[in-house]
Amino acid sequence: MPELRKDPIIDRWVIISTDRGKRPVFFIEESLPSKIGMCPLCPGNENMTPPEVYAIRIDPSPPNSPNWALRVVPNKFPALRIEGDLNKEGIGLYDRMNGIGAHEVIIETPVHGQTLSSMDVLAVQNVFIAYRERTLDLTNDKRFKYIIVFKNHGSIAGASLDHSHSQLIALPIVPRRVLEEINGGLNYYKFKDRCIFCDIIAQEKEDNLRVVFENERFIVLSPYASRFPFETWILPKKHEPYFALHDRDDNYFSISEALSIVLKKYDKVLNAPPYNYMIHTTPFGNGEIPHYHWHMEIIPRLTKMAGFEWGTGFYINPTPPEEATEYLRETHV
Amino acid sequence: MPELRKDPIIDRWVIISTDRGKRPVFFIEESLPSKIGMCPLCPGNENMTPPEVYAIRIDPSPPNSPNWALRVVPNKFPALRIEGDLNKEGIGLYDRMNGIGAHEVIIETPVHGQTLSSMDVLAVQNVFIAYRERTLDLTNDKRFKYIIVFKNHGSIAGASLDHSHSQLIALPIVPRRVLEEINGGLNYYKFKDRCIFCDIIAQEKEDNLRVVFENERFIVLSPYASRFPFETWILPKKHEPYFALHDRDDNYFSISEALSIVLKKYDKVLNAPPYNYMIHTTPFGNGEIPHYHWHMEIIPRLTKMAGFEWGTGFYINPTPPEEATEYLRETHV
Repeated sequence: MPELRKDPIIDRWVIISTDRGKRPVFFIEESLPSKIGMCPLCPGNENMTPPEVYAIRIDPSPPNSPNWALRVVPNKFPALRIEGDLNKEGIGLYDRMNGIGAHEVIIETPVHGQTLSSMDVLAVQNVFIAYRERTLDLTNDKRFKYIIVFKNHGSIAGASLDHSHSQLIALPIVPRRVLEEINGGLNYYKFKDRCIFCDIIAQEKEDNLRVVFENERFIVLSPYASRFPFETWILPKKHEPYFALHDRDDNYFSISEALSIVLKKYDKVLNAPPYNYMIHTTPFGNGEIPHYHWHMEIIPRLTKMAGFEWGTGFYINPTPPEEATEYLRETHV
Repeated sequence: MPELRKDPIIDRWVIISTDRGKRPVFFIEESLPSKIGMCPLCPGNENMTPPEVYAIRIDPSPPNSPNWALRVVPNKFPALRIEGDLNKEGIGLYDRMNGIGAHEVIIETPVHGQTLSSMDVLAVQNVFIAYRERTLDLTNDKRFKYIIVFKNHGSIAGASLDHSHSQLIALPIVPRRVLEEINGGLNYYKFKDRCIFCDIIAQEKEDNLRVVFENERFIVLSPYASRFPFETWILPKKHEPYFALHDRDDNYFSISEALSIVLKKYDKVLNAPPYNYMIHTTPFGNGEIPHYHWHMEIIPRLTKMAGFEWGTGFYINPTPPEEATEYLRETHV
């Protein structure tokens, strides 16, 4: 059973994933590229994954058969386990709880080799709809306090399978980074009586130095204090605290268009880079809060994280976001 | 001139290093391994670095000539600039200041190909002495609030030169991660009236599950909530807030022995892995504070940081620290 352990000095939880139980030798061996015929995420290999928990099918075929457009399955090697109680306890000055949670894989396309940037916008929209449906379903489990959606694209970015997929983890705690953002937003709100994200959008539209793309409902920015070269954030222009409660009229079409365009621009300017993205949203059940605004953060993996960054939480970014914005804007896709 | 920019949502400063000005093409090209004859850190090539600011010489040779055992030079491509005023300003809701700071390179050995794990303990001791001497010197500059010492070993860990070296950056702010630890230590102290690091050391000695090595003055632990496989911390056993004020009798001999042994163990168990280390210390001028305890954090680079970690500040560690400790303890060096 994996464990959640808390750093006693700062409020940081770590998953100690005993089930994955890596022996030193595994770190030395190189991971082998998977052959196409062997890909557990390809149609026809449905028996190689745990049974699906959600799918978008192109005909009324039964679960776990081929003919799907998108499929969500539990991770075969989950970081956390779905069964059991939280069972919090102290060990001297340390705190732990059982590693309860859900860890799912969103298989974004049946076509091995397709990517979010080569898929059409309606197929990308299906991915966001799947994120919503799984989030709403997992929200019913009262053991979970937060659901994080993220994607690792490319082996440098941490993907262990080639076939295009994203992941979702339901956690019994609210992760530190999100909590810090919410507290930061609350401090600003107390001072100004306005949402800081809404204010950032307003200032960026006026300055027009870091706006990469904009459609009716979403804006893509290079953040003023970007940690990484070509980092971008996608934000709804209207104040919305919850990702999963996004406007059903739009139904994620506009963010799918925005994401598709940004990824195509990355592919052209940065030669199809590896990247990570993640969705930050308000933990559910907090009502219509005025100080936090869901968004997506995208990080192309161009530089190596060095000791300085980890040692300090202080980043060195060699590309000013204004320059990155120019490159991305100029590139037509 | 590089800039320091503050994330408006959370209290995180970023160096936007305009001088390094990476164009997209640079991210695509692979970095070339340097030839030994061309190494700017080798003896005989002293003119390839800025003039030295400190050296330990094996004879009374003049500065910037060969015959040194250790040399400290300003970084030729500094992340921050030493000249100028801080000049803080607001830009709408954003905050910035000039990128003032010092960025130095500690060339640990004249022998290209030697590493901290192959050097003898007295040579490692010289490295710590150099950290101290540079820290004490830079402390006199009132523009600086913090000095961080760190090392990137191996290209995966971010080293851009083969020749064994570490780095030091003097900053006009206290970095976020250190501030969080100090605040965490203070909260514990208010509650318990004891140093949390001292309490951790006491509990670890009693549990004896995560103690990798111990000598008279230092202890090497696998932290209870290790973020990374085989992460270790080296702490002075006696309460000391400041790295640079460490006991002159010991003069870093004991930590040099401890570091040397840990790195040798890593080399054997993990096949000479890339690693980062960093020294966390109290910002100078805070007196004899009872709640913060300097230490060194060492992170072998075995796993890839993925989107989940960055998106959440929440780590998944596939190797329980108790298992890592066993492997390291069992290995004789």
